Amino acid sequence: MRMYDIIKKKRDGGELTPKEIHFFVDGYVKGEIPDYQASAFLMAVYYKGMTINETRELTFAVRDSGVTLDFSGIDGIRVDKHSTGGVGDKTSLVVAPIVASLGVKVAKMSGRGLGHTGGTIDKLESIPGFKTDLSEEEFISIVNDLGVAIVGQSHELAPADKKLYALRDVTATVDCLPLIVSSIMGKKLAADDDCIVLDVKTGSGAFAKTVEESVRLAEVMVDIGKSAGKKMLALITDMDRPLGANIGNSLEVIEAIETLKGNGPADFTEVCVILATNMLYLAGKGSMTECEDMVKKAIADGIALETLAKMVKAQHGDDSVIYNPDLFEKAKFSREVKAEKSGYIVRVDTEGYGIASLMLGAGRNTKEEEIDYSAGITLVKKTGDKVEKGEVIAVMYTNDEARFDGAVARFNNSTTIKDEKPQERPLVFARVE
Amino acid sequence: MRMYDIIKKKRDGGELTPKEIHFFVDGYVKGEIPDYQASAFLMAVYYKGMTINETRELTFAVRDSGVTLDFSGIDGIRVDKHSTGGVGDKTSLVVAPIVASLGVKVAKMSGRGLGHTGGTIDKLESIPGFKTDLSEEEFISIVNDLGVAIVGQSHELAPADKKLYALRDVTATVDCLPLIVSSIMGKKLAADDDCIVLDVKTGSGAFAKTVEESVRLAEVMVDIGKSAGKKMLALITDMDRPLGANIGNSLEVIEAIETLKGNGPADFTEVCVILATNMLYLAGKGSMTECEDMVKKAIADGIALETLAKMVKAQHGDDSVIYNPDLFEKAKFSREVKAEKSGYIVRVDTEGYGIASLMLGAGRNTKEEEIDYSAGITLVKKTGDKVEKGEVIAVMYTNDEARFDGAVARFNNSTTIKDEKPQERPLVFARVE
Repeated sequence: MRMYDIIKKKRDGGELTPKEIHFFVDGYVKGEIPDYQASAFLMAVYYKGMTINETRELTFAVRDSGVTLDFSGIDGIRVDKHSTGGVGDKTSLVVAPIVASLGVKVAKMSGRGLGHTGGTIDKLESIPGFKTDLSEEEFISIVNDLGVAIVGQSHELAPADKKLYALRDVTATVDCLPLIVSSIMGKKLAADDDCIVLDVKTGSGAFAKTVEESVRLAEVMVDIGKSAGKKMLALITDMDRPLGANIGNSLEVIEAIETLKGNGPADFTEVCVILATNMLYLAGKGSMTECEDMVKKAIADGIALETLAKMVKAQHGDDSVIYNPDLFEKAKFSREVKAEKSGYIVRVDTEGYGIASLMLGAGRNTKEEEIDYSAGITLVKKTGDKVEKGEVIAVMYTNDEARFDGAVARFNNSTTIKDEKPQERPLVFARVE
Repeated sequence: MRMYDIIKKKRDGGELTPKEIHFFVDGYVKGEIPDYQASAFLMAVYYKGMTINETRELTFAVRDSGVTLDFSGIDGIRVDKHSTGGVGDKTSLVVAPIVASLGVKVAKMSGRGLGHTGGTIDKLESIPGFKTDLSEEEFISIVNDLGVAIVGQSHELAPADKKLYALRDVTATVDCLPLIVSSIMGKKLAADDDCIVLDVKTGSGAFAKTVEESVRLAEVMVDIGKSAGKKMLALITDMDRPLGANIGNSLEVIEAIETLKGNGPADFTEVCVILATNMLYLAGKGSMTECEDMVKKAIADGIALETLAKMVKAQHGDDSVIYNPDLFEKAKFSREVKAEKSGYIVRVDTEGYGIASLMLGAGRNTKEEEIDYSAGITLVKKTGDKVEKGEVIAVMYTNDEARFDGAVARFNNSTTIKDEKPQERPLVFARVE
């Protein structure tokens, strides 16, 4: 078998066999197939696509490119939630403790932020002392004791995805359905969960710009997850606005804590309740209505917050900040952002907001950069809100005052204010089972 | 300017600016743009094509990637002929001395064979002592004295093409019109000729499988050559049959000599006369009829053969073989190939014939392999001929007897014999000026 023939077959629109797909992925990971053949192949896939069978095999090949985890040491049903990425998306910090407090295990591996979207691991590391690199034994032991632990993703997991993603990122082959599916699901299937709820973002900043495209993406992922023996479910949620009011690491942890106390922003709380409800439902804890009631009760009772605090403590973090978020270190500087004109906020560019937050120090441009955990943005006004010229629409935080000007300019460029009130968009557009 | 953006623009069907195209070619030659970005780009070009403006700029960028030659030291009009490659195509060995003997200069740079097609340089090196790596001074001096010299192509000429072709060859992006055009014309324009006659092959084994495709390819090349100030002309010639009877290095030189003596095969002689006529015509030596008469006279008078002999001597070769081809070293072994059934030869796969010759030792699989100059095939029967089962249709030559079986099998697989006489195909399908 020669990589040349595989490129040519795909170039001409042929359907690759499982053997050909595994030959490519295995050879590429081993370094036997050079980058230049891989990138020509990926570009051919960009144009010619992949059938569901090819996409499934590619996903399995990515999964099998490294170690696959064994969670059999964890008692009970294990559920995971995966979001395709968003700005200000701190849902994992809320739904994981809720679901765990209701008897379903969440053995979660999360990523770091790179570029304009944040990462759950970075957010958790804003909690003093919090450790995200636990041994497998400690990780499993905490999940068994408390129902939940969240650690960084092992480098040994799906190394093909790491290598392929780095190549796609520099060859304009990122936004291609079968490659996205195999990247996300290849990693997810390398973990050992029983159920996976996918949160597929839709909107201008997301890969899938229309609801139809998002549903198609979700359907393929659900189909492939099921064929690997997982219980699967996907929700299509809005990404044309940031979730909640806070963007930035400790700011988002604080907002998650407030939400677990029942004081969170309405939009973010609603999405968390829906996601947690679906996770419980998929894990077989009852009907959708029963699960929703359980979720709401777990928040009202404070047991979800207590579970988060216990997890923080078990992962060597300072749990006092959970009960008293004022103890989080504050940024030295803050600046108000004011509306440049009167009207309604009709549209925000969430990617632009993410970049503004990055510019304040909340994220990394390169893997080596250090994060300013207290940096970020609190939105005072959001899409649909009426504003007067000069009214405060956001507050920015940073430890490096020089960063404000650029971030404010970027923020304002990403906020569209017009005279007419915009139509309301739903938070959840569709559900794929 | 970033290569990523150039890939993305072409991926999405955009037309690249001259600056973007030169940025790619220059950066790739310098090693600043990695192979994996170049190959993704080439695959995008494969699908999205290039406008005539883009193709022209790519050609110019390839031309300008290395040294460009200065033939101003050569007196008189300089004409070149370029063939898009064929099996048994020894026309350069015939037309160059004819044209030179009639007062038009041919300062020719040719390539070596790789794969199933032979190279003029390898053929010439089958002449004992013949040198193809002359200094520029010696080369120009011979052209001024005799009207013709043929040397190997300098590595400094259009290095972008060398690097791009090697990449295309392993990423399934060879057969793509703008890439073919920029490769051929980039090299040709780096030389310093006044006139170029293109011999564009058409047929099952060629890139352009239909006459229409071949004409389109020729038109683009002629257009770009003209825009670079050259006088241009292209002929579309048949490649569904090998030219003449001989395939292999010294075998082809012998056939070229016989043709210059007026004893060549009719088909090969006809193509040589047409090409030489067009070269003279383009160089302004007279009307097409006048030029054709001059060509036929140069053969009949023996002055073309004499010019070849002089060139061979000037290039340090043994000119006695030109006057007495029996002096060429013979292959130790020969084997007759017999018709497997009775009927007409309706079709031959020229590429298969080329590979059979390669298997006998006449070519190289890798650049490092040594050539057996006396190895090859003499066709006794050709397309359209009637054959009886068991009748000799070809004779094979090699110095390694073990090579016969494979070559015979390949040859027979490439020869289709059927009951009905096939339609005759013209040798020249079209002319593009």
